[in-house]
Amino acid sequence: MDLMDAIKGRRSIRAYASAVVPEEKIQTVLEALRWAPSWANKQCWEVIVVRDPKLKSELAGTLPRGNPAIAAMTDAPVVIVLCALRGVSGYYRGEVTTDKGDWYMFDAGIAMQNLCLAAHGLGLGTVVVGMFNHQKAAGILGVPEKVEVVAMTPLGVPARAGGSTKRKEMSAFVFHDGYKK
Amino acid sequence: MDLMDAIKGRRSIRAYASAVVPEEKIQTVLEALRWAPSWANKQCWEVIVVRDPKLKSELAGTLPRGNPAIAAMTDAPVVIVLCALRGVSGYYRGEVTTDKGDWYMFDAGIAMQNLCLAAHGLGLGTVVVGMFNHQKAAGILGVPEKVEVVAMTPLGVPARAGGSTKRKEMSAFVFHDGYKK
Repeated sequence: MDLMDAIKGRRSIRAYASAVVPEEKIQTVLEALRWAPSWANKQCWEVIVVRDPKLKSELAGTLPRGNPAIAAMTDAPVVIVLCALRGVSGYYRGEVTTDKGDWYMFDAGIAMQNLCLAAHGLGLGTVVVGMFNHQKAAGILGVPEKVEVVAMTPLGVPARAGGSTKRKEMSAFVFHDGYKK
Repeated sequence: MDLMDAIKGRRSIRAYASAVVPEEKIQTVLEALRWAPSWANKQCWEVIVVRDPKLKSELAGTLPRGNPAIAAMTDAPVVIVLCALRGVSGYYRGEVTTDKGDWYMFDAGIAMQNLCLAAHGLGLGTVVVGMFNHQKAAGILGVPEKVEVVAMTPLGVPARAGGSTKRKEMSAFVFHDGYKK
C-alpha cells in the first residue's frame, strides 16, 4: 500500500470479523513496530500478543463500562498489548534529561502508529485503547513493576469499514516562526 | 513510496543539504501529521514551522553541547517544532482518566511519526530531537504556559544517507499470552 494512502486511509476499527489473522501478518506488524525510532535507539517497548480468549475477555473487562472498544477486544482474534520499560527513554546515565520526565509515552506512540499503519496496509483493523485500568491489565498479564502497560489494540479483519473522523483545519494548529494565535 | 519500505527505510538524518524544501512538501508532511489518530480524536498537537535562520540558530542553542543534531537544526532550511495542549489528551470532563496522567506524549509520538514517514516518502530527512531545554525553546518561540513544547525535527534534503541502527531481536521484546522473560 502507498504510504500516504495508509496514513490518510487508516481508521479506528471497532467491529471485527472472527476471521483468523495469519501468523505472518502478525509478524509483519510486529516488524513494523520493531523499526520505530526511539530515544537514543533505546527501544523501550515490549509487546504482549494475546490470543487466549479468556485473557482477551479479562482485558476487555479493564475498559470502562460502555466503551465501544469492549466488544472489539473479544471479537478480534488477537489483542496487542504495548508495554514500556520505565527509566530508559529520556534518561542518560540514570538521570532524567528533560522536563518531560520518562519519555516512554512518546516512543510508545511512535511504535503503536507503525503497528497500526502496517496493519492497515495488510487489510487489518486496529483501534488504540488507552482508557482502561492499567494496573488491572498488568495483573492479568503478569507484567512486573518496572514495566508500564501503556496501550492495547485489537488486531483483526474489520467487519465493516471505520468512519472518518473530523480533523482540525491546518490553520488551527500550524504556526510559522513563532506561536501565534 | 510503499508503506513498509517507508517504515523500514526511514533513518534519522543528521546531515542536511542547503536545498530549499518546496512549500507543497511541507504541506504534505503537515497533512500526514493532521491524519494521526489521537485520544478521543482530541488532536492536542500544535506545530510551529520555523524557517527564520535566527530562530533556528536560537533553537539549536537549546540542545546540549556536543549533540550531533545541533548542526542539523541550522543546516536544514526548516525546523518543525511539535507542541501539545496540556489537559486535553487523557482527560474526560476535566479529570485525568488513567494512571499515565496527561496522555499528550503518546499522541505527540504518533503525530511526529506520521510526519517523519511522510517526509521520508518525499525524499526528505528528519531526526526527532527530544533532548533540549524545552523551557528555553518555549521562550524563543513565545509558546504560552498551557502549551508544552514536546519535540523538534529538522526537515530538509539529506546531505547523505542515514545509517541503520541496530534493533532488538523480536524474541527480546515480544511475549505471548502473558509477560514471560
